[in-house]
Amino acid sequence: MAGSGAPAAFSIIDALMAITGPQGLLTGDDVRARSCDPLRNVPNLAAAIVRPASTDELSRILRLCAERHQPVVTQGGCTGVAGGAYAREGDIAVSLERMTRIEDICPISQTAVVQAGVTVEALRAAAAANGMFYPIDLGSKGTATIGGTIATNAGGNRVIRWGMTRQNVLGVEAVLADGTVMSSLNRLIKNNTGYALKDLFVGSEGTLGIVSRAVVKLVPAPTTQSVAILSVGSFEKVLALLARARQVPTLSAFEVMWRDFYDLMAHSGTNRRPLAPGQPFYVLVETLGYHASVDGQLFEAFLAGAYEDGLVADAVQATSVKQWEHLWRVREGSEVIVRELSPFLSFDISVEISALERYVDKTYAALHREYGDMRTVTFGHLGDNNIHIGVTVGPDKPEAKSRIEDTVYGTLREFGGSISAEHGIGQHKRALLARHKSAEEIETMRRIKTALDPAGLLNPQVIF
Amino acid sequence: MAGSGAPAAFSIIDALMAITGPQGLLTGDDVRARSCDPLRNVPNLAAAIVRPASTDELSRILRLCAERHQPVVTQGGCTGVAGGAYAREGDIAVSLERMTRIEDICPISQTAVVQAGVTVEALRAAAAANGMFYPIDLGSKGTATIGGTIATNAGGNRVIRWGMTRQNVLGVEAVLADGTVMSSLNRLIKNNTGYALKDLFVGSEGTLGIVSRAVVKLVPAPTTQSVAILSVGSFEKVLALLARARQVPTLSAFEVMWRDFYDLMAHSGTNRRPLAPGQPFYVLVETLGYHASVDGQLFEAFLAGAYEDGLVADAVQATSVKQWEHLWRVREGSEVIVRELSPFLSFDISVEISALERYVDKTYAALHREYGDMRTVTFGHLGDNNIHIGVTVGPDKPEAKSRIEDTVYGTLREFGGSISAEHGIGQHKRALLARHKSAEEIETMRRIKTALDPAGLLNPQVIF
Repeated sequence: MAGSGAPAAFSIIDALMAITGPQGLLTGDDVRARSCDPLRNVPNLAAAIVRPASTDELSRILRLCAERHQPVVTQGGCTGVAGGAYAREGDIAVSLERMTRIEDICPISQTAVVQAGVTVEALRAAAAANGMFYPIDLGSKGTATIGGTIATNAGGNRVIRWGMTRQNVLGVEAVLADGTVMSSLNRLIKNNTGYALKDLFVGSEGTLGIVSRAVVKLVPAPTTQSVAILSVGSFEKVLALLARARQVPTLSAFEVMWRDFYDLMAHSGTNRRPLAPGQPFYVLVETLGYHASVDGQLFEAFLAGAYEDGLVADAVQATSVKQWEHLWRVREGSEVIVRELSPFLSFDISVEISALERYVDKTYAALHREYGDMRTVTFGHLGDNNIHIGVTVGPDKPEAKSRIEDTVYGTLREFGGSISAEHGIGQHKRALLARHKSAEEIETMRRIKTALDPAGLLNPQVIF
Repeated sequence: MAGSGAPAAFSIIDALMAITGPQGLLTGDDVRARSCDPLRNVPNLAAAIVRPASTDELSRILRLCAERHQPVVTQGGCTGVAGGAYAREGDIAVSLERMTRIEDICPISQTAVVQAGVTVEALRAAAAANGMFYPIDLGSKGTATIGGTIATNAGGNRVIRWGMTRQNVLGVEAVLADGTVMSSLNRLIKNNTGYALKDLFVGSEGTLGIVSRAVVKLVPAPTTQSVAILSVGSFEKVLALLARARQVPTLSAFEVMWRDFYDLMAHSGTNRRPLAPGQPFYVLVETLGYHASVDGQLFEAFLAGAYEDGLVADAVQATSVKQWEHLWRVREGSEVIVRELSPFLSFDISVEISALERYVDKTYAALHREYGDMRTVTFGHLGDNNIHIGVTVGPDKPEAKSRIEDTVYGTLREFGGSISAEHGIGQHKRALLARHKSAEEIETMRRIKTALDPAGLLNPQVIF
């Protein structure tokens, strides 16, 4: 084809096709049909979605793109909400959806080796079949891939016990922008032999390389569960409860719902009202353990102590798996938020817990002062400093979007909080990053980016 | 002084003195008197040891050294055994021993902010005074500094519960080779805003920058302890015990001693013989918890179950703090090893636990085949894949040293193990690294090194 005068986009597609074969390449409507965003239909403008069947194919694809100065966007399950997978016209999108092998699960070493296209749910199921448990648990787990959760350092509900994705991954194989296969598939807990390459690639949002395989940590599958929802009269008491809950070594979730969130659920018509509304805070506490003889006893002692010491107004404890699921549904009512608050803005904030109530109060006051009686909901993973705030954007004021963002993030700065606790920067928060991170941190990140991807071809509009 | 013809070493010392004042500079015998190695007297050949009193002074020192192409070696407590603090003639050594402020301890957020010169012991004591606990626990904790343990990603005895130093540090402030103060003093558990700079600096052994301050994670101070030593008839049974112990959520140590190690202690004349010798393995199990009502019960149930199912030949459980310390002394008998085995070589190895017994057996067989009846000891942190092997080097065969190393490391390669589990690479294992890590990993590390320290001035002979 050289010199034939064919458009560049055509000739690179031919070259990609030569690497993967036709089953490895999607173009036209097959690309258009895939949204880059899980919440709304953001058109996938990529010239093609290339789907390598192996690390070797992926390496050849990236080498080809590097030679042609072709920007590449990596798309996992496209469940991220930070715009990390948005493809522009002319981009080549890479999807590892054909690399879905779970290569090894070892209950003795407590590890699994997987290709990056495996979904979180598939890994969890395979672990369960071996008596093991992969702790990362997200609402989107059926679609989100291991590669995507590694790229974004996904969190979820059990971070308080097992950490974020970075803490649950031991090693990665990544293909760099020039096609180099950087295999760092460490299986060892302790391995002090140079820089933390795995940790660097986790959370780099596809800007340093494409993770093709990973070694993840598993834990024994828990055999006991306890869940309760408590209503609590003040944030001070919520913090006192958290301090006690942290001494329960089987603690696996400590989720807090502000009154507005709980009220929304209680009045949603979905029967999610395990306790009377009206208290300022509602807390979901969960433990996952291995000892029927003591786990429930310890959980009940925690609840009883909290009652006795006046930390809790009311409480309901699940006594069956069905009730357990019912209580979790109160906390996870995202479809109710979408239904009742849309159009709304969603924020993924972290603030030190000692300052969290003040931050939310100040933000609410500013929002109401500036925009009247807009609806809000706040909830989140308190033990991890992480809350999500939802704010209605009235249909008559679409221009309010960036002003609301300014208010929420502007309040955040004085509290030393983070503009992204678990969702990442993607394309959406690039501009914010410069205002919330020091110039020296950004410059250090940029030097690393340039060292590994000097032409800036990988996810070019993400983070930087 | 410009153009005065004074020797370069003199003029830089004058310039350093101008930054720190005389109390910030050690020269001559004050430098010579400090060994670069905790185990033997390795002369400190540095032209000076400069001791900044603040991050600002440190920044000016590094800017000066960058301008003069002056290599800089960072020396913390000099307790590392990988030669990471060795200073060559003409080097400038930097010590943060005057930066020892514990700036903040917050029991609510469970964090402390410290200057890098604080010793691990001082931090642990300050945490304890606030009802909190810093989990990193090393034999050298009285001398090892937070900065040094961050540089080396120190491990120790409680990794199975709380992880290595990397998992216990939330943020760092580091001064780069050009004097840039890169402040990334994150206090948040969840903060997905770009690359994992903290994780990259932890374990970089002073080659990317000098860590000047850090935010560390604390946990509530445990209030219950249980310790036992068990004798076990096979490695298979040791693994079965470990799998059960992992289900005890308060598990804080699972230390295994091979027969040769235990025999050495049992016959050392130090009364470290809680159980009869003769079994192939001895295991120290510890739990640290918060609930007197159930922690002991769970520990005893673990022991009883292990007995009933034939996993344990014999066991002794501590019933007092004194006995608790006595049992730990069996495992920590490094002075007995030094006395009985010297001159000896010490190895810090990790291998997946499913292959660990085969690795040790094969290594022992190779050592005995090649060098006759040399003495060995093996022990370590089994849950973390980490063992330490000590091998006598007979006084009549000093040339045996590198041959023994070749044997131990050579056997390691086929098992996919690591040449350094927790001690780091330093200067001692540079040559080995190239044989045990892929060229692509080393090249990626080198690109990062060059991006942050283009002239290669920081710890120039460490890692690379």
